[in-house]
Amino acid sequence: MNAAVTEKPIKSDQKRLLAALRGRIPDRPPFWLMRQAGRYLPEYRELRRQAGNFLELCYSPDLATEVTLQPIRRFHPDGAILFADILLVPHALGQELDFREGDGPILAPIRSVADLARLRPAAVHERLAPVYETVRRLSRALPADVALIGFAGAPWTVATYMVEGGTSRDHALAKRWAFADPAGFQRLIDLLIDATTAYLDHQIEAGAEVIQLFDTWAGVLPAAAFRRWCLEPVRRIRGHLADRHPNVPVIGFPRGAGALYAEMATIGLDGLGLDAAVPLDWVRGAVPPKLCLQGNLDPQMLVIGGDAMTAAIREILTSLADRPLIFNLGHGIVPETPPEHVAALAAEVRAWRSPS
Amino acid sequence: MNAAVTEKPIKSDQKRLLAALRGRIPDRPPFWLMRQAGRYLPEYRELRRQAGNFLELCYSPDLATEVTLQPIRRFHPDGAILFADILLVPHALGQELDFREGDGPILAPIRSVADLARLRPAAVHERLAPVYETVRRLSRALPADVALIGFAGAPWTVATYMVEGGTSRDHALAKRWAFADPAGFQRLIDLLIDATTAYLDHQIEAGAEVIQLFDTWAGVLPAAAFRRWCLEPVRRIRGHLADRHPNVPVIGFPRGAGALYAEMATIGLDGLGLDAAVPLDWVRGAVPPKLCLQGNLDPQMLVIGGDAMTAAIREILTSLADRPLIFNLGHGIVPETPPEHVAALAAEVRAWRSPS
Repeated sequence: MNAAVTEKPIKSDQKRLLAALRGRIPDRPPFWLMRQAGRYLPEYRELRRQAGNFLELCYSPDLATEVTLQPIRRFHPDGAILFADILLVPHALGQELDFREGDGPILAPIRSVADLARLRPAAVHERLAPVYETVRRLSRALPADVALIGFAGAPWTVATYMVEGGTSRDHALAKRWAFADPAGFQRLIDLLIDATTAYLDHQIEAGAEVIQLFDTWAGVLPAAAFRRWCLEPVRRIRGHLADRHPNVPVIGFPRGAGALYAEMATIGLDGLGLDAAVPLDWVRGAVPPKLCLQGNLDPQMLVIGGDAMTAAIREILTSLADRPLIFNLGHGIVPETPPEHVAALAAEVRAWRSPS
Repeated sequence: MNAAVTEKPIKSDQKRLLAALRGRIPDRPPFWLMRQAGRYLPEYRELRRQAGNFLELCYSPDLATEVTLQPIRRFHPDGAILFADILLVPHALGQELDFREGDGPILAPIRSVADLARLRPAAVHERLAPVYETVRRLSRALPADVALIGFAGAPWTVATYMVEGGTSRDHALAKRWAFADPAGFQRLIDLLIDATTAYLDHQIEAGAEVIQLFDTWAGVLPAAAFRRWCLEPVRRIRGHLADRHPNVPVIGFPRGAGALYAEMATIGLDGLGLDAAVPLDWVRGAVPPKLCLQGNLDPQMLVIGGDAMTAAIREILTSLADRPLIFNLGHGIVPETPPEHVAALAAEVRAWRSPS
């Protein structure tokens, strides 16, 4: 499982997703959808019933490959995102993790520098080896025009789960640690920067052609804390990856960053994922014109479908027609989404023609 | 209870809060704190135990006056906000409402134009009369330098509770109604604009000197929907109030509005409440220099206290020293807050001197 795999030659010309991330405007914008593999698909629910628990699914190359491919067969998006979870990194570090139906993830919380001693960074890649195997299999299985997207949670977001012990309404405990003991909290963040960089490095070596960093809870921090705990760790991970894999583009997704999206555009990312609340007329002026933007349809639009969804899709395509764009949602697909609405979205984007 | 009360002459010179909202810079910034009356205070918890349920507390002029005054006695802030709840308006409109300990509010949901027939706008002021009586009593009871702040929820935020039937993680049902049937949803919003305007009109006639509109969930909408369901209703309420009470300033608090804060600064508000995530260096450049800003300390800073809190307070005071500012939190005080940290905050702001 640890055998190095030569990085695949990137077939840029065939992959619209890579072209857009390199600052070009393909014949039409590429698209993929966050959580495109998931509970809204009957074939996913069927496989979940057979698979047992969620972690086993993530760690099974057979099943994770199959789940990743399910939406590709149905909708043929321009990107396939590895099926995994952002909490595999803390789990691989040795933090106890359980997914309970309806309750979300439950972790044995880490709340002090002393608790960090429970983590074992050395064992990470052994535990994550099945994920790398999934990437290798996907790399061989995907159609030639579909880019393989690897991913990880950004350190701040992963840290919130590690500290809170699960999902949280106000991220109170993570914030308090970060505010009251920034030097101690920095040790957790540094540990996550290292583990995440290594994890993504292995994903790229196994065949991931694009990386996305999910900072789902970037929007809850004051500006000074955002700069230290969201912007700086992502800058460092991006820098480390650039040293080793200069041709692999990285998309940052600092959900809820508001006006701070402008600063996220300055740290060397190739793409910037926009949540549904970002005003496109503002962001156009706030980030460099060559930077690829990704987003930002509200997932509830995909639930209702119809003319309202079509109008919202066209508004995004029109607003950003003259710059590199990856069409996507502003957040993950929700389980209530009818798959036929995803098919309609795919048809709409596929029919679009970029201005020449 | 319906007897008209003459609007009090406003003693601007004695009230720093009003001076700042009129674009002036007093000797030091005024301050008050969202949820300054609440569960973090032992005297509030004691009174709650005696009072029975939360709605009875809101509708009792004796108890609501006492609760409003509790933090004034302890900390002598520059503003006293009426103790009430943003869901009194739907309740007064006839929507069933219950507050259950731990679960938050439970409402009989309104999910279609047909459901709107269950609301009875004509009966609103009879039900809200005790709130107006509380305002009258507070108006007489407050120290001469403390401004009385009336408030309401902004229509979008109130609508989310009415449609969801309570608090909600993603506001899915409210969004879907607004996206799929904007004309129908507009009827709910119009009804709320009218009821809220009349409610605030009565609060002002009873003695409220400042109004704040809480749009707690403004940050969850795409830009076009934000403009229609957050910005436009607040503009209309502000306009109606300006016609009748041109001297009563209005503060808008579109929590989570991100880059759209810049647009909220263009609709005639006297103050703009900033959530904790708004970067002050950005907002300085994005809104007119005479517009009073309010905020934006993270409530978790008030939980940890100490040097980190002091530094964060000074950073806000320094960043906005040269413009009208009301010092406040970026969101409500949380129950875990030690009251002595609030006292330390008050002392810190009171010791500050504006540059002359």
